Amino acid sequence: MPVVVTDIKRADPEAARALAQYGVATVHEAQGRTGLMHQRLRPIWRGPAISGTAVTCTLPPGDNWMIHVAVEQCQPGDILVAATLSQAHSGYFGDLLGTILMARGVRGLIIDAGCRDVDDLEKMGFPVWSRSVHAHGTVKETLGDVNIPVSCGDTIVTPGDVIVADNDGVVVVPRLNAGTVAAASAARVAKEEASRARYVAGELGLDVNNMRPKLAALGLTYVTQGDWESSQ
Amino acid sequence: MPVVVTDIKRADPEAARALAQYGVATVHEAQGRTGLMHQRLRPIWRGPAISGTAVTCTLPPGDNWMIHVAVEQCQPGDILVAATLSQAHSGYFGDLLGTILMARGVRGLIIDAGCRDVDDLEKMGFPVWSRSVHAHGTVKETLGDVNIPVSCGDTIVTPGDVIVADNDGVVVVPRLNAGTVAAASAARVAKEEASRARYVAGELGLDVNNMRPKLAALGLTYVTQGDWESSQ
Amino acid sequence: MPVVVTDIKRADPEAARALAQYGVATVHEAQGRTGLMHQRLRPIWRGPAISGTAVTCTLPPGDNWMIHVAVEQCQPGDILVAATLSQAHSGYFGDLLGTILMARGVRGLIIDAGCRDVDDLEKMGFPVWSRSVHAHGTVKETLGDVNIPVSCGDTIVTPGDVIVADNDGVVVVPRLNAGTVAAASAARVAKEEASRARYVAGELGLDVNNMRPKLAALGLTYVTQGDWESSQ
Amino acid sequence: MPVVVTDIKRADPEAARALAQYGVATVHEAQGRTGLMHQRLRPIWRGPAISGTAVTCTLPPGDNWMIHVAVEQCQPGDILVAATLSQAHSGYFGDLLGTILMARGVRGLIIDAGCRDVDDLEKMGFPVWSRSVHAHGTVKETLGDVNIPVSCGDTIVTPGDVIVADNDGVVVVPRLNAGTVAAASAARVAKEEASRARYVAGELGLDVNNMRPKLAALGLTYVTQGDWESSQ
Amino acid sequence: MPVVVTDIKRADPEAARALAQYGVATVHEAQGRTGLMHQRLRPIWRGPAISGTAVTCTLPPGDNWMIHVAVEQCQPGDILVAATLSQAHSGYFGDLLGTILMARGVRGLIIDAGCRDVDDLEKMGFPVWSRSVHAHGTVKETLGDVNIPVSCGDTIVTPGDVIVADNDGVVVVPRLNAGTVAAASAARVAKEEASRARYVAGELGLDVNNMRPKLAALGLTYVTQGDWESSQ
Amino acid sequence: MPVVVTDIKRADPEAARALAQYGVATVHEAQGRTGLMHQRLRPIWRGPAISGTAVTCTLPPGDNWMIHVAVEQCQPGDILVAATLSQAHSGYFGDLLGTILMARGVRGLIIDAGCRDVDDLEKMGFPVWSRSVHAHGTVKETLGDVNIPVSCGDTIVTPGDVIVADNDGVVVVPRLNAGTVAAASAARVAKEEASRARYVAGELGLDVNNMRPKLAALGLTYVTQGDWESSQ
Repeated sequence: MPVVVTDIKRADPEAARALAQYGVATVHEAQGRTGLMHQRLRPIWRGPAISGTAVTCTLPPGDNWMIHVAVEQCQPGDILVAATLSQAHSGYFGDLLGTILMARGVRGLIIDAGCRDVDDLEKMGFPVWSRSVHAHGTVKETLGDVNIPVSCGDTIVTPGDVIVADNDGVVVVPRLNAGTVAAASAARVAKEEASRARYVAGELGLDVNNMRPKLAALGLTYVTQGDWESSQ
Repeated sequence: MPVVVTDIKRADPEAARALAQYGVATVHEAQGRTGLMHQRLRPIWRGPAISGTAVTCTLPPGDNWMIHVAVEQCQPGDILVAATLSQAHSGYFGDLLGTILMARGVRGLIIDAGCRDVDDLEKMGFPVWSRSVHAHGTVKETLGDVNIPVSCGDTIVTPGDVIVADNDGVVVVPRLNAGTVAAASAARVAKEEASRARYVAGELGLDVNNMRPKLAALGLTYVTQGDWESSQ
Repeated sequence: MPVVVTDIKRADPEAARALAQYGVATVHEAQGRTGLMHQRLRPIWRGPAISGTAVTCTLPPGDNWMIHVAVEQCQPGDILVAATLSQAHSGYFGDLLGTILMARGVRGLIIDAGCRDVDDLEKMGFPVWSRSVHAHGTVKETLGDVNIPVSCGDTIVTPGDVIVADNDGVVVVPRLNAGTVAAASAARVAKEEASRARYVAGELGLDVNNMRPKLAALGLTYVTQGDWESSQ
Repeated sequence: MPVVVTDIKRADPEAARALAQYGVATVHEAQGRTGLMHQRLRPIWRGPAISGTAVTCTLPPGDNWMIHVAVEQCQPGDILVAATLSQAHSGYFGDLLGTILMARGVRGLIIDAGCRDVDDLEKMGFPVWSRSVHAHGTVKETLGDVNIPVSCGDTIVTPGDVIVADNDGVVVVPRLNAGTVAAASAARVAKEEASRARYVAGELGLDVNNMRPKLAALGLTYVTQGDWESSQ
Repeated sequence: MPVVVTDIKRADPEAARALAQYGVATVHEAQGRTGLMHQRLRPIWRGPAISGTAVTCTLPPGDNWMIHVAVEQCQPGDILVAATLSQAHSGYFGDLLGTILMARGVRGLIIDAGCRDVDDLEKMGFPVWSRSVHAHGTVKETLGDVNIPVSCGDTIVTPGDVIVADNDGVVVVPRLNAGTVAAASAARVAKEEASRARYVAGELGLDVNNMRPKLAALGLTYVTQGDWESSQ
Repeated sequence: MPVVVTDIKRADPEAARALAQYGVATVHEAQGRTGLMHQRLRPIWRGPAISGTAVTCTLPPGDNWMIHVAVEQCQPGDILVAATLSQAHSGYFGDLLGTILMARGVRGLIIDAGCRDVDDLEKMGFPVWSRSVHAHGTVKETLGDVNIPVSCGDTIVTPGDVIVADNDGVVVVPRLNAGTVAAASAARVAKEEASRARYVAGELGLDVNNMRPKLAALGLTYVTQGDWESSQ
């Protein structure tokens, strides 16, 4: 039976908002390289990073009805995550639905299917990550679910998890981990800044990260062009 | 025998020009969700919407000769539609052909294959929707046809039809329908504007479109997180 | 045994730098339509054309260690070409590696796999052509080679060859041919400019290139719409 | 308005049946390399070649209702051609629909979407060429058309045309051309048989087809390995 | 922290085994069209349907170590489900791992990545559904998880769920639903058999399913070819 | 200038023939996981493993002329490797060319493009690995090269190298390495046979390969379902 779960627990709002500043690549690293969606999820316009708490829905093929149902479950600071039950490219989402979501304070949409009205959505400043851009319309005939765990972009999203999205893609942070991942992200950024100063000054990763002994131990050999050619 | 049809009937020029203002998604809806090309047809640069009357040609694999033949059949206000006889990515079209088409008053190109010189074409302001961007050159050895019906982007285009293209994709409007589709598009836009005002004010699609009774009749159930978990 | 070849011969630096001005499509034509990489190699941001001498490396799946090794072999004016040993989309390259390469005077990266930190790389002005944008991190466990011939984008790149890359894609010019290809490119541009003037004035390719006799000889027939329909 | 055209003209039944014996590759050549569907159309099981007259329908995304409507328009010797209005992979067709079509004397199905029950269909001996194999079910909510021209596999199919399908793919022969294409196919087969005897005896295509002078005229050069290497 | 969950609850073994007889398409329908994996999961050889209880693992890119860890958690009647953390095609699985799994009574493997040794696996009779066939080897350097919920083929698999796989693809049945889905599948098969008898006798789906009134109400129109053409 | 290199050095014929028995996966491992072609190269029919010495050619898009030229350079025991200069799916190769190659003692074809006449080729017993099956014909207008190094399936093939192909794919062994790779393959097979006996007896890879200490050192934790759930 299709259900709408109405009282999901959300990640701490401040922690959810804070993760955007670190970006997808850093957050993904900071939580142990898990939770990254497939690279088919791409921004429909090249905008800023966002983060927020997930409200989820599942969509039957070519049917966007449950987006309307899901909107009612959204709060300011949420990001809507729309999964499909079969690979699809129809345009499930356009500027009118974007207007509804913006009016409700929703920060963006992640949809594993098609999106349309991309110019209007860019003008409105509403960010969307989608599988494709396609104008083919959808129907409103079949039910799906709202706020159950879904598989979106080859990754499980549980309602209330934190979504971080930027021009590198989309990553999911489990609800209870938002604070620790934020701390780990900040530490990672600090460490990278220290490395960056040395790199700008011309040092190599081979030395900054002390890689030469391990490379030698594994047998990496430096040869001249002449020696290499005569070995072929 | 390869043919060039020389005296095609075109859609009314004013109706053809007018359709651009409504955009692909609206026009596609207004004519009953038909005529939309596959999402593989993408703009090579992100520009304005265009519309115009179709001149068509078919291209043998890796051979762009018939584009030169088709140009002569073009008039101001036309859009050239180039289909291929086998999936192809070579760069059939570049800035020189763009120069020829612009000189003739052609508004854009839809090509179900590759395009090159994308920077020059953007600088010139000549819009192209293509399957890919690829620089591989083509030959001029084999004939195709000009101004017969073609299959482009999984859609039939008959010469003289109206093409509407924007950043959502490409849609075809049959020649004799341009006026009625324009009227239906205008009506649709007006209706959407009325809805938009209500959405901006915070109303939901569930209420604006009176969806709740049908959802209930189909059995959509609202449950608490606790109840949902205990049912799993 | 994995090797690093340390003393590769490079194309003449001036010839290598000069090729960028002609662009990928022209250079590819000028050298007989060879050396063009597959269209899956796309710029991560839309920037200027670059050209330079190739330093190559091979990457095991999900392992970017050899990029660090390859950097040390780079000189100002080089372009790093990273091939993989199995199709991959992980984010092998980001802003820290970009910082190291810029500090060394490297002009760009061609990578037949994924790239991340695309916003930072655009802000830094470091150009990358990649197969995909993906944030998934890589490990540093397995060796590859540096400065041996590689297959990147379905094309062989020999260390020291010239790479030319722009928004049309990427082309490889063999080391010893840089000068002759530059000359052929310049000649081609001059010829195109002459044609362009005639095209701007409204002449057709059919006449500028004297195509009509050959079309007629092959049997291209001009018919009216009425005659065509009655033949179907 | 969705329509069902009820009295289409079909190609001559004997000519339609006869084309199967020549196979897709030969028929495609014999009619001037037109009408071949995209290689994404593949047989769901590896069976014999078929040919017959086309009955067509268009399917909304995820909706197979019009297949039921189209069946009634089929006659013994027909092949059903199902096009979609947007790229789709759902399983529009299974063993029950196969049973209905076989009962009606239909020779096979060409569907530019997904198919399911592939084992049952193979056991029944009902051949299908589809875009994918996928079990996701479809609905019956939205109308399409029956027996109008459709775009299937990047090719236009007009009702009554001849379809030829085998393990190489699917080709469409216009209704009125069936006889002449059959004759051209037979001639081609005869010519190939003559060539084959010479090839079996060890002659080369270079000699059988007198290719050497043209190759030489275009500048093909035979060199030794040593000479080639010293030229690099 | 990577974990191995050691005492998962499994679906009832008899119910799990029984589902294979209904096949993927029927089971998927019987549970409301949910749980079907993406069509990219294909059998490496065309064998019988299987069903069993899921043991899950996640695999880092190019690393198959966790398959060895997962094997120890398998029991007779299980099916191993291997998800990856980033799209991958390496050959994570071959005949030696197949030998280990068969020795343990495991019925098959579902892997959202590449598989190799397909001939040996077919000879052994060990069924595998994979994303691709690729021989590229993997390493054993990085941890993943065993027996946590995973996203495989765009679908969530919870350990202990029932997997059904045949030549149509793969479907997941939640652990507690195996019995009710089996009953619904049996009912569906019975109903289909009744319909099939009528179809074999020549009745149409339009009549067996009483579709004509709804089609008429939606406006489907039957026209002659002549009338249709004059309306274009 | 297009060239035909006429006197290439080939790998030792006995070593070349011997490699087939080990299969692609083993040979690829035995030479350090290099030389494997992309998984897009698939057998057109499921036959035996082959190995032999490479004769190479490059094909312009849609042009198969150079296959005819390459045949003359083939000897018994060779395998023809056909690369393309731009991604292509046309049917460059069919049963007539298969007849010519068989008459010359060629063992098979590897083509990074399309192939046709797949049923005839299977009946003849001529094995082909191709990118796609497509019947679209090719022309004979433009030159390529024969017996220069080519990039096929994302891998460099030098004339005279050994090609090994089976239902797992295609791998290239450099000419001078055939003997050592054969020895390493034999050693690998022997080692696997020893492991297999232990696996058949029910031992796990964790123990046969002594993996437990390293897993523990990296922090892999075994937990109960209850403990895992309370940690989420």
